[in-house]
Amino acid sequence: MRDLSNDRSLLAINSATVKPWTLEQLVEGCVRAGITAIAPWRDIVQAHGVEKAGSLIRGAGLSVSCYCRAGLFPAADEAGRRAVDEAAAIGARSLVLIAGGLPKGSKDLAGAHRQVRDGIAALLPYALAAGVPLAIEPLHPMYAADRACVNTLAHANDLCDQLGEGVGLAVDAYHVWWDPDLAAQIARAGERILTYHVCDWLVPTRDLLLDRGMPGDGVIDLRSIRAMVEATGYNGLIDIEIFSAQNWWKREPAEVLRICLERHQTVV
Amino acid sequence: MRDLSNDRSLLAINSATVKPWTLEQLVEGCVRAGITAIAPWRDIVQAHGVEKAGSLIRGAGLSVSCYCRAGLFPAADEAGRRAVDEAAAIGARSLVLIAGGLPKGSKDLAGAHRQVRDGIAALLPYALAAGVPLAIEPLHPMYAADRACVNTLAHANDLCDQLGEGVGLAVDAYHVWWDPDLAAQIARAGERILTYHVCDWLVPTRDLLLDRGMPGDGVIDLRSIRAMVEATGYNGLIDIEIFSAQNWWKREPAEVLRICLERHQTVV
Repeated sequence: MRDLSNDRSLLAINSATVKPWTLEQLVEGCVRAGITAIAPWRDIVQAHGVEKAGSLIRGAGLSVSCYCRAGLFPAADEAGRRAVDEAAAIGARSLVLIAGGLPKGSKDLAGAHRQVRDGIAALLPYALAAGVPLAIEPLHPMYAADRACVNTLAHANDLCDQLGEGVGLAVDAYHVWWDPDLAAQIARAGERILTYHVCDWLVPTRDLLLDRGMPGDGVIDLRSIRAMVEATGYNGLIDIEIFSAQNWWKREPAEVLRICLERHQTVV
Repeated sequence: MRDLSNDRSLLAINSATVKPWTLEQLVEGCVRAGITAIAPWRDIVQAHGVEKAGSLIRGAGLSVSCYCRAGLFPAADEAGRRAVDEAAAIGARSLVLIAGGLPKGSKDLAGAHRQVRDGIAALLPYALAAGVPLAIEPLHPMYAADRACVNTLAHANDLCDQLGEGVGLAVDAYHVWWDPDLAAQIARAGERILTYHVCDWLVPTRDLLLDRGMPGDGVIDLRSIRAMVEATGYNGLIDIEIFSAQNWWKREPAEVLRICLERHQTVV
């Protein structure tokens, strides 16, 4: 097998990592740094205009590892289809789905699980027709109430079993690193892995959402998890996606990019 | 089956819930409120003196649902044995074990899992001889790095399978409510459940450790989880354990006790 560990063409920069940047700045910054792939969130694509965004990205020769994100089921079908259209317009390899948490005022977790499954099933024919694979991303269990009630790879794999063709997984090391069943569930996922994301778990973590670490600054054994993912045959892009209100979002984005590239070579 | 839902003799107050109180104040406060069981942490027992603590609790006619806590493996054997002795001295029905997180500087989660298993195995003969059941408490996955690397009931059940007699589980709704496998793993636990703890998951949660809610103030379907636990045959005490630096720890403890009692009747 080719040694991929230092292949910079595998690095994708998620737009959340350089949050102050517009899509145009992200594209220019990546080109300047020799980074060949991005994973944009919808806000910057919509702000630029979806069709123009597609041209800009293609014109710069960049790949789009995935599009972040749709979901938060039960969502209006129309919103999900719009996200599929946008993902297609920018040539994203997959559309990341976040399950959504408990409906407001509800404590019915099993009911929320059913709504998520039914919501994805309802979106799936449209996504299949558009040629956009849907990537279910299990989020860390600390988001079960308010962001995503799919919190383990086992649950996400079960959903894939139920939903069939056109649905796969987004594996984010931050969300799944703690799972004692990690190796088995990544192996079970196999070809379903559509996109792989990394950042790091800081000790201490000061905020449930916005205190994620640069790869190498925390406790996640990223190289081991990457090896599990690549053992399934995945040799796609690796997104660095960092939510960090008090640190990385306050730095000069070009400098953040430089450090991402360096860490990609050394610890991712 | 007897309807236990409003039986106040099943309520136990964990000393962490009324953190400003000494053991003496906790005992007096519970007796005054008609609460018949407590779950003390080691700090207040040691501050009172272990032998005197046992006399105080017995003299007041209180039960001790569990003793919090030992563990943080790999721990010195001596420390674990001291915790067993203290649990025996105060008549605790079990000693709660917290696994401990990653050793400082380590990213080897699988290695930490092995250390925890070996640490419990090393303590077990002493605990068996002392007649103190060990209750492994899986903590929420957000504590995997720094507090406990046993984060699911499935993992804790596996440990019980491996370790055998003398080891059971502490089920805390706060730590396990999100788990899609919850019902199955509680059923699997069966008679292993030694103690059942409750508090609530707040939305938003502002701190990973110290922002837990009073039962009823969050999103956990406590009555459903209790029903799962009681379906195993468990009809023991229910501990209310709340870490709440910015709210409940700032209130008058007697008032907190009154509200615990009320919520025990209505939502636990």
